[in-house]
Amino acid sequence: MASAIHYAATLRTLTPLGALPDAALNTLLSQAHSHSYPKGQPLFNQGDAVGHVAIILSGWVKLTRTSASGTEAVLDVLSTGHILGLQHFFAGTPHPCHAIVAEDAEILSISATLLPPLLAQHPALTLAFLQTLAQEKNALEQELEGRALQNAAERLGCFLLRLVPPAQHKSTQPIEIKLPFDKTLIAARLGMKPETFSRALASLKKELNLRINGSHITIPRVGVLTKQSCASCSGVFPCYQRNCR
Amino acid sequence: MASAIHYAATLRTLTPLGALPDAALNTLLSQAHSHSYPKGQPLFNQGDAVGHVAIILSGWVKLTRTSASGTEAVLDVLSTGHILGLQHFFAGTPHPCHAIVAEDAEILSISATLLPPLLAQHPALTLAFLQTLAQEKNALEQELEGRALQNAAERLGCFLLRLVPPAQHKSTQPIEIKLPFDKTLIAARLGMKPETFSRALASLKKELNLRINGSHITIPRVGVLTKQSCASCSGVFPCYQRNCR
Repeated sequence: MASAIHYAATLRTLTPLGALPDAALNTLLSQAHSHSYPKGQPLFNQGDAVGHVAIILSGWVKLTRTSASGTEAVLDVLSTGHILGLQHFFAGTPHPCHAIVAEDAEILSISATLLPPLLAQHPALTLAFLQTLAQEKNALEQELEGRALQNAAERLGCFLLRLVPPAQHKSTQPIEIKLPFDKTLIAARLGMKPETFSRALASLKKELNLRINGSHITIPRVGVLTKQSCASCSGVFPCYQRNCR
Repeated sequence: MASAIHYAATLRTLTPLGALPDAALNTLLSQAHSHSYPKGQPLFNQGDAVGHVAIILSGWVKLTRTSASGTEAVLDVLSTGHILGLQHFFAGTPHPCHAIVAEDAEILSISATLLPPLLAQHPALTLAFLQTLAQEKNALEQELEGRALQNAAERLGCFLLRLVPPAQHKSTQPIEIKLPFDKTLIAARLGMKPETFSRALASLKKELNLRINGSHITIPRVGVLTKQSCASCSGVFPCYQRNCR
């Protein structure tokens, strides 16, 4: 556990908290602490009260729900800049899902009991949280649209595109990306059975000449993958509707 | 177009705006106007700037997106108490979907240009909007979970349960509900093809002895439908995670 004040520069690069006035950001950080968590560590469980609001600084965290009959659904896999617990803090409801570290993660957390006075003191913070929730809700609607309109290969293509670094979005050269977590979890995150995922990957490999080497994938042309993946979607990459990185 | 100040009592029954202090609610309403819209009327289109934030007082509004190839996805069908445009106003993004009146609707709208000074004046309003977005995001996650874990008959059963009036949630007598909009739209709202919807309805009719007469459905026992519909879900009706009424 370490004081978090030196994360101001990092948070400045993450919208919308990065747009906070210095005073609000520094007060928030002075009351926050950073922790490192290994892969597999649970952060909270379905039904827990919201004890902390937590910003992911690095690594990946999966959100899952367990049904009454014991089946698990992966709701999302989140990374840098995402805030955990925010909506349930404001909705006044317990965590409706489990959060488990999917790849070693560093997380900045602030006790939920400290938030009400902070929000009263800094209206800009309330507004920044509102913008965060608005963007996250946009992303969820994008996800629902994708599940309604895109086939498995298009959804997988969309996922791969979002791993392309911004500087290479318009590249006409082959680009190598690394899958950020294992394929079983990617399949679950995309709402696919593992065999559907394998068929989708094989289809992209054949149609678009993707080269696959373990977790490393070479995309010959970003533009061609974009044309394939965005054909059935209302947006066109880079759509920035979902921050997967 | 009518002044909206007399809607205070109506809004008081709708959370979370209903929890606003009198001053904040009255200021909001003094700047809002109500309109009646017939079925089929577009309220805004995908790509439009957010000109208004609008509260549905009665009726139904469907949100749809059109893909590049022209296919339409129904994102949601919303009713009383839902607020349109809120997240895109705060995210600073244009409407990513069309909004079309699905059943004659009365809507209270306030110009987006009036909101920033209102929010600055009434921090409670910012907080109420935050709670609204938090609850809506919860509902979307519930929807994503349902699509991952529930089969078509369970999702349809869940939809029917949410049409049961609260006073009858624990009834052991047969209950008649009325489908709020046509079956094609219900199927689209549930992310099903029409033929999947028909099979799901036939399955519920056979397994649970539902009686179906046009848009009127009699549920012999709410408890039995709950047992069927909630088996694969993390919640149990009445879960209140989604306000469909």
